[in-house]
Amino acid sequence: MVGDRDALLSANTRFYEAFSAGDLGAMDDLWAREAPVVCVHPGWALLEGRDAVMASFKGIFSGSPPDVTCSQPTTFIDGRMGMIVCHEHVGRLVLIATNLFVFEHGRWSMIHHHAAPVVPEPGHRKPATPPDDLKN
Amino acid sequence: MVGDRDALLSANTRFYEAFSAGDLGAMDDLWAREAPVVCVHPGWALLEGRDAVMASFKGIFSGSPPDVTCSQPTTFIDGRMGMIVCHEHVGRLVLIATNLFVFEHGRWSMIHHHAAPVVPEPGHRKPATPPDDLKN
Repeated sequence: MVGDRDALLSANTRFYEAFSAGDLGAMDDLWAREAPVVCVHPGWALLEGRDAVMASFKGIFSGSPPDVTCSQPTTFIDGRMGMIVCHEHVGRLVLIATNLFVFEHGRWSMIHHHAAPVVPEPGHRKPATPPDDLKN
Repeated sequence: MVGDRDALLSANTRFYEAFSAGDLGAMDDLWAREAPVVCVHPGWALLEGRDAVMASFKGIFSGSPPDVTCSQPTTFIDGRMGMIVCHEHVGRLVLIATNLFVFEHGRWSMIHHHAAPVVPEPGHRKPATPPDDLKN
């Protein structure tokens, strides 16, 4: 069985719910256990492996976890891999995140999170606009 | 036929060669024609679709294309999707890029590029270290 788009979006939603709630158990549950995982928090160095990724969330959650919401996710699925690119909102800060999932043990599990802020600039840089979905 | 890791790495190398050479034809050749594509340049808003992505490279190449090199790529392949997470070096600036590919028409074609700088900070943020490969 291969995961569908709704299930992928649901997994992505669970990520942001766990993030905003500072729920390390829910976050741990979301990340893949068989596939290798990586993570890049905004401005951070690359984190490789479950231990490093979970330690990063433990550290983030030990303070006041930021209220992170996700808007208008763009999805792409091929086989057992699913990609979501979405906007993240932390207060007034807008970021773009790339979230990768694999379909493992009957559900979508995260293997990569890469978030970085959008820097508004005049000139040639396109302003942030809400994306539409790419593929159902 | 599904693409192997060497071919995926080769496609990733071609991306950086095209970038550094300012070769719009080579860049155009590299991006998927059937699968939808997205791109996030450092700090930019999300670009969606081939036209927007190619226009961004045309704009970048119209000046002096930056000399971008990639080091120690981390790879993950499942089915017809391949992910590479690597460090990018532009002068002294270090970035992390997530590059996504699909195996289309017998070769790996890019569907997503997301690059953002690593911001060195003291304290809890881990310093940038070269990644090892995750999976062959």
